[in-house]
Amino acid sequence: MSNDMYKNPSVGEIRRLIREGKWTAPTAGLAPGFVQANILILPKEYASDFMLFCIRNPKPCALIEVLDPGEFSPACSCKNSDIRFDIPKYRVYQNGTIVAEGTNILKYWRDDFVSFLMGCSYTFENALIDSGISIRHIEEGKRVPLYSSNIMCNRVSGIDVNMVVSMRPISYKNLTQAIQITSKYPSMHGAPIHIGNPGEIGIDDINHPFLGDPVTIKENEVPVFWACGGTVYNYVEKIKSSMAITHAPSHMYILDVQEKNFHEY
Amino acid sequence: MSNDMYKNPSVGEIRRLIREGKWTAPTAGLAPGFVQANILILPKEYASDFMLFCIRNPKPCALIEVLDPGEFSPACSCKNSDIRFDIPKYRVYQNGTIVAEGTNILKYWRDDFVSFLMGCSYTFENALIDSGISIRHIEEGKRVPLYSSNIMCNRVSGIDVNMVVSMRPISYKNLTQAIQITSKYPSMHGAPIHIGNPGEIGIDDINHPFLGDPVTIKENEVPVFWACGGTVYNYVEKIKSSMAITHAPSHMYILDVQEKNFHEY
Repeated sequence: MSNDMYKNPSVGEIRRLIREGKWTAPTAGLAPGFVQANILILPKEYASDFMLFCIRNPKPCALIEVLDPGEFSPACSCKNSDIRFDIPKYRVYQNGTIVAEGTNILKYWRDDFVSFLMGCSYTFENALIDSGISIRHIEEGKRVPLYSSNIMCNRVSGIDVNMVVSMRPISYKNLTQAIQITSKYPSMHGAPIHIGNPGEIGIDDINHPFLGDPVTIKENEVPVFWACGGTVYNYVEKIKSSMAITHAPSHMYILDVQEKNFHEY
Repeated sequence: MSNDMYKNPSVGEIRRLIREGKWTAPTAGLAPGFVQANILILPKEYASDFMLFCIRNPKPCALIEVLDPGEFSPACSCKNSDIRFDIPKYRVYQNGTIVAEGTNILKYWRDDFVSFLMGCSYTFENALIDSGISIRHIEEGKRVPLYSSNIMCNRVSGIDVNMVVSMRPISYKNLTQAIQITSKYPSMHGAPIHIGNPGEIGIDDINHPFLGDPVTIKENEVPVFWACGGTVYNYVEKIKSSMAITHAPSHMYILDVQEKNFHEY
């Protein structure tokens, strides 16, 4: 995989490489300007509860599209794609436990599966970079660090789910602008959910993320936290559905729709 | 009912009068600054499809809150209220046909009813008025005119639903500002869905609205159309659910949450 892909991205080419299993790495920084999505695939019997969970928790789980049962091509956001192949790495859960990871989910697919696409903060990273705010996990070639916070999601069917958050170190100089820019993308988690002291939201050790890799926080920087679609990992562990399939952390679904279509004015 | 309510609104007092059946008129202009909502109440078996309809059609049907089955107090948006009493006028449907109108729905209530609250454009009228843009149906003491357009909603379960739109005449001088202001309220239908020539969206006669009253359009004004929660009337007629309860047109649910909480920056 050449670094040219970062410089000359073509969404079609990227998706082809992913489909052929030739790109299995994280997607941060890929295809700037295009929406990246979290996915959760559930049997139909669990779909209504999760839809309600998203409606009640739009900060971590803002719905971009919900597919009809058995449908594997997102008609609105990526119609020529196939959700069974076009994500670089999947996680398969049974009864709330990870049972497999892989680069396609063909052998698990069922006609009663309902696929959910939710906004991901990778989408707004491009807008931050364009404004001169660099993204540390991209700079360092790491996966974005995610933490399971003590912020509780609004409940559905009485289930308590801790919100997962992503963290990006932002310099004091850029802090206001980073908040302003991300506020414009409410479907991609929007404005930060917390700024500064990680202990306030139950994060004891910033160097040991729940998922992803730790990144350098410099002296003139503040850790800034955004609600994260990784909340679905906590959700799936709690509901213990017979089956559930998600993207592996940091391995997102790159869509044909563009970031600018989700930019609020 | 004295006109003082327009001048000195107290949401609690307004809701008490509505609950006692003493205010049975349209709610436009009441309780400025507070959110007004469309409602649809459906038996649980129809709830999942309608939730998906809202997700796929956020312009006419942006969800503010979805209550648990049997629940009649909206925990997030109006916790001390009771959806069975606190709307000035209800419509009751059976199999897609109106069978009753009334000021409460106690005798119809069932434990399997799921209540949906959706944003209403009455919410942003206050912001328009504050900017010096008067609202004709309030000026003329009429119900806002609604039209069934030829804009088709995104489908759920293969059902075709025509989008209902509301119309407000706006002067050329104020047109840009009216678009800017309403764009800031995406949960309340947001920016106009159409500006100008009514024929473009299938409206043959602007003086014969589908619901509500015709209003004066002056020479220096353009008819401006916003997606409308009245789309639920077309939806209910199409799905022919065994039961459905909505607000009567222009008789909205006034909530405790404030307009400013739904203002995007």
